[in-house]
Parts: sequence; structure tokens; C-alpha cells
Amino acid sequence: MSSVVSSSHVRYRDAGVDLEAADAIVERIKARVGGGLFGGFVPVSALKEYDEPVLVSSIDGIGTKVRLAAALGCVDGLGKDIVHHCVNDIAVHGATPLFFLDYLAFHHLEADVVERIVASIATACNALGMTVAGGETAEMPLVYPQGHFDIAGAVVGVVEREAIVDGSTIGEGDVLIGLPSSGLHTNGYSLVQHLFFDDEYRRYERALGTTLGDALLEPHRCYLNDVRCLLSTGAVHGLAHITGGGIVGNLTRIVPEGLQALVELPPSPPLFKYLAAQGVAWDEMRAVFNMGIGMIAVCSPEVLSLAAPGLQVIGSITSTDDSTRRVIFCDRH
Amino acid sequence: MSSVVSSSHVRYRDAGVDLEAADAIVERIKARVGGGLFGGFVPVSALKEYDEPVLVSSIDGIGTKVRLAAALGCVDGLGKDIVHHCVNDIAVHGATPLFFLDYLAFHHLEADVVERIVASIATACNALGMTVAGGETAEMPLVYPQGHFDIAGAVVGVVEREAIVDGSTIGEGDVLIGLPSSGLHTNGYSLVQHLFFDDEYRRYERALGTTLGDALLEPHRCYLNDVRCLLSTGAVHGLAHITGGGIVGNLTRIVPEGLQALVELPPSPPLFKYLAAQGVAWDEMRAVFNMGIGMIAVCSPEVLSLAAPGLQVIGSITSTDDSTRRVIFCDRH
Repeated sequence: MSSVVSSSHVRYRDAGVDLEAADAIVERIKARVGGGLFGGFVPVSALKEYDEPVLVSSIDGIGTKVRLAAALGCVDGLGKDIVHHCVNDIAVHGATPLFFLDYLAFHHLEADVVERIVASIATACNALGMTVAGGETAEMPLVYPQGHFDIAGAVVGVVEREAIVDGSTIGEGDVLIGLPSSGLHTNGYSLVQHLFFDDEYRRYERALGTTLGDALLEPHRCYLNDVRCLLSTGAVHGLAHITGGGIVGNLTRIVPEGLQALVELPPSPPLFKYLAAQGVAWDEMRAVFNMGIGMIAVCSPEVLSLAAPGLQVIGSITSTDDSTRRVIFCDRH
Repeated sequence: MSSVVSSSHVRYRDAGVDLEAADAIVERIKARVGGGLFGGFVPVSALKEYDEPVLVSSIDGIGTKVRLAAALGCVDGLGKDIVHHCVNDIAVHGATPLFFLDYLAFHHLEADVVERIVASIATACNALGMTVAGGETAEMPLVYPQGHFDIAGAVVGVVEREAIVDGSTIGEGDVLIGLPSSGLHTNGYSLVQHLFFDDEYRRYERALGTTLGDALLEPHRCYLNDVRCLLSTGAVHGLAHITGGGIVGNLTRIVPEGLQALVELPPSPPLFKYLAAQGVAWDEMRAVFNMGIGMIAVCSPEVLSLAAPGLQVIGSITSTDDSTRRVIFCDRH
């Protein structure tokens, strides 16, 4: 076979993959996040100062919020979504984030969209003093439908072994501190998009003070600093990041056996009432959405005098009659 | 609103997401890979024995090989594909893998498929003595078409700073050692699937000694042990994992400026000849596929007397007249 290119020859771009376009995009991204080698390097000599360093890691996606963002052409918040989601998942164990990795997969690489997402990830990482150690951007026309993409991220942090927070010290009489969410964060978007047609997201909603789309695309809040402040009181026994599965699904993960968390939620923010008004059962709302509480800290009651004022108590820990663990809503719903 | 469930209420499963099925799958997976908390823990006190530990990480997918595996119902090799792809990417820098994280996203969670993929990932990690520190399994009917899924993985390893391999010591007179690939590994599958109809993959091909589908789904080879053996000679100056972009795209990443790699490929394995015979231009073949070489080690010539016999020399390093870096094929094609 000759190396002369014949027009009858099959080329990768016939299959929907444009290598030259991909290379051009990589060059544009490199300027923001570095790279070029196969793996990313993060020197960790500082770990030698730990007595027993433990790496804490998490990998996650941001669900079908990516579909909504793509449909509305608003992808700039997705960096905060994936970075904050991942960072919150290790912050709840007391870890300090060290570096982040991202995976982006598209039907087709549109340079502008790719660059905006990568830039938003880099900005979110920089704001937390965290390195983007690596990333992969894939063009997969056979897996993703036209106009669609997915985002995954992984974070690695470190904590001193004796400072690990895992809920094991939670005891009777502890209080539940609820930290407000900024919206749905990154869960429940398949349900939301089952409720509305795409043209409804651009409509201004008086009850929300903005368009439905903007309310839904509000980025996932980062709790790293809140968690640090709470941990500095020494009163924190457990932290739960409220993601898929809602308050019950996530708080249950850290409540020890023989104890139960009694939760009395404050009135839900307007977005949750708005969604419930579309016909979502209230118990389903609670099984899917964070209901306005994105993080719950289980603390000894002294936290209320030790931490900055304004903490919102949303429940307490009591013992059960058996060895089960559970989370019970005890409010009016 | 009452908590009584009315049949008129919208539920998450109406949107294609079945929370109970997801919980059941999580329980099945947990038995294999542990988990339950928000982040995964990996104690790294051993890092204190390093003078200057550097964490080396990589995140990647396995391209549209997932589509082919899904279409043929053969997903058991995908664990090796994602784990070995990632591990090779840090092995080339001399790193020892510490732990792995996986992200799986599906249109619909089929318990059997999810469990087979997770099991294959756990098996591949165990075989390398590596922990699966975390994973995410997402059901995203609005992003993935029916029957489709994607897989991403991240690996974190460690290397002593002074032992980092990055190609910077590559010099004139070095030889290129080619390590055979097991097939296409995880690149070029969009092009391949542009060439064939799904029913053609099940056909036995005498030239391949197996069906086309089996030849294409052969898992990505792991080079961790090969790399360790080569590194023990002290003669390795650079390592390139041949993935997307082929030999030129990947070898170029480590060749220093002012040098060029002259590559003379051995005859390509039958699978590559078979694909070329479908009408893929030879230069396009080389830009997309590994052409039978999955890893290239750039070494001082002493490696040939120091390492185990059987090393395959596929080229050498010479100087250029200018300050560019390049990779040139100098064989008959």
C-alpha cells in the first residue's frame, strides 16, 4: 500500500473524529492547565510532616445537569459543579484537597465549549489552591448523541489518620447543623428534566426571582471553608455531603448503629417548593433532592458557642431501641 | 402537601432513574470493592520513606471500545482496558501505582452488566496489588442512548523525584525498544466501527485466527512489569505509551528538542493489515493505531546486554539540524 493519500481511503474524520481539531484544542487547553506528558506530577514532600498521612480520594460526575447546561448553552458553571462536588466528598472526612483530574467526553469536540468547561474547572481548582494534575478530553460520536457530553472528576486530598472524620464518634445528644445549599447542586436533574420542556427553562419565574434555567444551573456550593471552620471547634463528630439519595440516603452513611438522627427541616427554599408544585411527591422530593441543605455536620452541642454565630440546627441524635441506624424526618410533612 | 403517595405524583423512575434498583446494585458492588463513605482512604505512611515523593496521576477513558463491547455483550475485558490504560500512563514515568478510581455512567443500570464491569476492574486492580479507592456508578438516561455507557478511570501512583522518567535524558545514539501490543488496546475504535456492520464482528476470520470482534476486544496490555524490568537496568531514558495519536503522536511527547526518533517498524500484526485492507490509508493507520507496538522505551544501547534477551529494536535517536523534535518513519511504507 502506498502512502499517497487517495480520496477513496477511509479517514478518521469520516468516523466523526477529527484528530487535527483535537490537537488544536489540546494546544489551547495546555496553556491553561499545563500537561503534555502521560501523567501529572504533584510533589508531596509535605506529607512527610504528617505522622500517618492518609490519602482521601473521590471520583464523581454531575449527572444530567450536563444535559441541561448543554441545552441552554450555559456551561460555565460546570467547573464549579464537578470540582465542588468532588472536594465536598473528601472535605467531609477532614481532608485537604491536593489535586484534581477531569474527564470530558463529547459527541463532537467544539473548541469553544471544551475550552469554556476546561477553563471553568481550572478556575474552580485555582480558587481552592488545588492543582489540575491531569485531564482527558475524548471525542466519542458512537457513544454520545449529537450535542451531548459528560464530565467526570477525581480529587485526591490528605488527612492525618487521627483527624479522619467518619461519624464513628457521633453520640446521643449531638446536634445536626445544616449548611444551606445553593440549589439542587448536582442531583435530581433527570427528574427535573422529566417535568419541563426545554423552552420553559428560559421563562422568568417570579417565585424564583430568576429564570428556571438559571435557578437550576446555579453551581454546586463548596463547603471546604465552612468545614474547616467547624472542624477548628473540635466539636464535629461527622459530616454528610447531601447528594444523590437526599438527606436520608447520605446522613444514614455516617450515623452509627443504635442511633437515629431526628431531622426537622426548615421551610424549603422556593426552588424546591416550585418543583413540588409540579406534582413531585414530597417523600420523593426528599429522596432525590437536598431540600435546601447541602451539608450536615453532626456535632456536640458546644459547637453552638464555639463556632461563628448563625448556625442552623436542624435536628439531633437520639438512641434507638435496637441496633439499627436510621434517619427520620419529624416535621409537619 | 401530604406524604401519602398518590399515583398522580411524579416519581424518579418515571424519568428513567430507579433509585431502588440503584441501591440494590450498590449493595452488590460493595461486597467486591468496599465503600460506603464519601471518599476512599489509602494510608500512605510508606511515602515517608521517600526522600522527595511525587504523586503521579492520570485519568482516562477507553474510547468507543465501550460501544463495541456493549454491542457484542462482551464487557468482561473492559476492566483490564481501563485499569491497564491508566497504569501504563503513570508507569512510563517510573511510578508505582497506589490506587484506582472508576466512573461508570449508563443509560440504564443493568445489574448484571454493572457488576461484570466492576468485577473486571477490581480483578485488574487486585492483580497489580492496587486498591480500588472509590467509584461512581451513574444512571443518566438523558445523556446516554439506550444500551450505551461510558467508563473513565483515574490512577494515582508514587515515584521518587530523582527517579522520574520523562525523556529529558534521551540522547543521540539511544535505541528504541518496542514492546508488542495485544491489539488496538483502547484507541481507534470509532474508525474501526465506521468500517464494519455489527454482524461482521462475529464472523471467524482466518487471517486473525479468531472472530474480528474477539480480536478487537482483546484487552489493553499492562506494561508495568516490563517497565520495571527495563528500569532495573538503569539504561532507560524515556518511555512512551502508544495511545491516541499513534507512535508519532506519543513518542514526540518525550523526545527532547534537537533530536529525532527514526522508527523502522517491524511487519504489522495481522489485525492491522486486516484493517488497512478495508481501505484505511497507511498514514492514517499510523496516526490512529499503535501498529503492534504498545510501548516504546528509549534506552542507551547497553540495555540490550543488561535486560532479558528478546528485546525488539525498532529505531534510534539521532540529532537534527535545528531545534525541533520529531519522529520519522523510515521503513518501506
